[in-house]
Amino acid sequence: MIEQYSNLIKLVCEKKPLVYHITNYVTVNDCANITLAIGASPIMADAPEESADIACVSSALVLNMGTLNESAIASMVSSGKSANGSCVPVVFDPVGAGFSAFRNKSAARILNEVKLSVLRGNISEVRFLAGIQSETKGVDASESDLQNTNDAAIVAKTLSLQLNCVVAITGAVDVVSDGKKVIYIKNGHPMLSNLTGTGCMCSSLIGSFCGAAPDKLLEATVAALLTMGIAGEIAYDKAGINGNGSFKVALHDAVSCMSMDTLLERAKLYEA
Amino acid sequence: MIEQYSNLIKLVCEKKPLVYHITNYVTVNDCANITLAIGASPIMADAPEESADIACVSSALVLNMGTLNESAIASMVSSGKSANGSCVPVVFDPVGAGFSAFRNKSAARILNEVKLSVLRGNISEVRFLAGIQSETKGVDASESDLQNTNDAAIVAKTLSLQLNCVVAITGAVDVVSDGKKVIYIKNGHPMLSNLTGTGCMCSSLIGSFCGAAPDKLLEATVAALLTMGIAGEIAYDKAGINGNGSFKVALHDAVSCMSMDTLLERAKLYEA
Amino acid sequence: MIEQYSNLIKLVCEKKPLVYHITNYVTVNDCANITLAIGASPIMADAPEESADIACVSSALVLNMGTLNESAIASMVSSGKSANGSCVPVVFDPVGAGFSAFRNKSAARILNEVKLSVLRGNISEVRFLAGIQSETKGVDASESDLQNTNDAAIVAKTLSLQLNCVVAITGAVDVVSDGKKVIYIKNGHPMLSNLTGTGCMCSSLIGSFCGAAPDKLLEATVAALLTMGIAGEIAYDKAGINGNGSFKVALHDAVSCMSMDTLLERAKLYEA
Repeated sequence: MIEQYSNLIKLVCEKKPLVYHITNYVTVNDCANITLAIGASPIMADAPEESADIACVSSALVLNMGTLNESAIASMVSSGKSANGSCVPVVFDPVGAGFSAFRNKSAARILNEVKLSVLRGNISEVRFLAGIQSETKGVDASESDLQNTNDAAIVAKTLSLQLNCVVAITGAVDVVSDGKKVIYIKNGHPMLSNLTGTGCMCSSLIGSFCGAAPDKLLEATVAALLTMGIAGEIAYDKAGINGNGSFKVALHDAVSCMSMDTLLERAKLYEA
Repeated sequence: MIEQYSNLIKLVCEKKPLVYHITNYVTVNDCANITLAIGASPIMADAPEESADIACVSSALVLNMGTLNESAIASMVSSGKSANGSCVPVVFDPVGAGFSAFRNKSAARILNEVKLSVLRGNISEVRFLAGIQSETKGVDASESDLQNTNDAAIVAKTLSLQLNCVVAITGAVDVVSDGKKVIYIKNGHPMLSNLTGTGCMCSSLIGSFCGAAPDKLLEATVAALLTMGIAGEIAYDKAGINGNGSFKVALHDAVSCMSMDTLLERAKLYEA
Repeated sequence: MIEQYSNLIKLVCEKKPLVYHITNYVTVNDCANITLAIGASPIMADAPEESADIACVSSALVLNMGTLNESAIASMVSSGKSANGSCVPVVFDPVGAGFSAFRNKSAARILNEVKLSVLRGNISEVRFLAGIQSETKGVDASESDLQNTNDAAIVAKTLSLQLNCVVAITGAVDVVSDGKKVIYIKNGHPMLSNLTGTGCMCSSLIGSFCGAAPDKLLEATVAALLTMGIAGEIAYDKAGINGNGSFKVALHDAVSCMSMDTLLERAKLYEA
């Protein structure tokens, strides 16, 4: 059963999908490098003058609200529509949704105008978008939202049905739902939350896998989160004790060395 | 006496202050990661539409002029005023002040419209802002300004009295003044100047410590500079010989592993 | 003969040229750090209000189209003209030329309004600018363009004569021409293409060397590409097996430790 996820690693390397990102300037370098590490090809660009042109010839589009501004929103909407028109999967990372009126309005506009393939966020962000009371603190999940896994499953499923897309909530346990199934991933390491951009990198990996397997969005999303979770474990074992800098290097190493076998051996997931 | 600084490390980890940055896109990833490494929580965002909303619910605000533009200046001013209204400490890093008319005008506007808690810069930048003749070369201190420590103390004290805030001049010896006391920090390593962003990261650490201890701005600033200086020494010992890449990794490691004991043992500071 | 290149390493360290970049936010941190690693001094800034002021007091100007927008183009043109007026060498990196109408128009405007010293791109980008049929895929060279070295030499020479500047095409074999000579560099490692920004870093190194030796543009360009190629080999030997993260660290290490002797020993270049 796990082969349906691990096989996708080979597919990414074979297809080398072009993953177009409109993303924040904080973690963009990590996103580009993690996209390369898994075998895909990143392109980052945010000008409204070219975003639609790029989206329709890409294999996947990743929209990340990290450092939002008016110009980027315009580009997100136009690239999203262009991707929709060309059946290019769209991954949305609603960074900080629930934290400012500007972010809330922008997220609402994207949900309204773009048909998403996958939405990935932390529990606070997804809860907010599902219209369930939440309390976002900055760009991290708030303590009070922290994750009762059953609860996260309900939130993921609810939003999945609302938006008719795959929804992934990442945290101590990752939860992915397509509105029917719910899949739980127990890989990962707490140290991942000590680095900026591990959430964004998850979204880039989701984009990479969806770009390679646009007809298997649920499986692609799970494969991406398994990759990041397992890479986090490997990185911790190898270098965590040395500190955050070494852990980050080891994380990029682990993603670039991720094999089907490693994923098969280490995946801890169950379905409900 | 050094306990008053080292104790603040524990406080940052306990309070996990939200440190809002409006900063440059060159070193922003390092700033976010160093903020996490010391135990605080970074948020980076620069849209004028949300900057005031974010600032007033943050624990500290860091304004960094590195890659300045009109929109960021508007956000700096509105977030600064919002922070002032909510007693949120404001740290200002006047990158490149003295180097272009645009930077000079922008720095003047911020000094004029925002009440600062701490200003940190290199000797050329601070000298310029204090109205003392200087010669900024790019974003680094000019040779001719390079640092007669006594002179730096006078500059720091002068600007501190002018602005009624803590002023820190970082260099071979760091000098911090609140207009009364002057504290000298002799930790650090020349290799820190071979990396981009070590100044910016100092400002992020100052924001992190001030966010945890807003009633102890002088102590928070000193604790931040001790942390960076000592981390630089540890990083050099561990990896400096390998080159700049390894040194950077070891620097992030050392900040993330910084303990009260290490700071107590290694701090080299005196007061005048 | 190779001394004419290796000697320039010493010159960069002695002159510490100020290298002004208007570049993308994806790889800007790597560009700043690689500029420091070779001994030059980077400044990154993109506001139209100050770009001309900074360019004319810099030692070199690097224009990189990675994440293009209208404001950056205006700054590129004004800084380029200012650099031209002050005999400051201008290096142009036409990232993604051929991939969108917006990029094509912007590249054409820069070629039209700014006199370049060096243009560096991959074969697809340079081919497009030379008016030879091409097929750009994102920001990487397309498979179909991949490099028949003889062909690249013709393309480089053609564009060099059109623009009256040095043209460098980087790839498995780097090709540099000033319209008369063609120089081939066989250093490097395939793993360099697994990291984002190695092309951008080449352009930063070219800017650093040209800033130190503005009267030797061809030699400076070759020295820069030798540095990156040899650093890639050293990095692979030291850390490639560990994965992309370690390779990136080792690459920065190797550039920062590059010596005239290493360059002399390892350079693999020939002229035609």
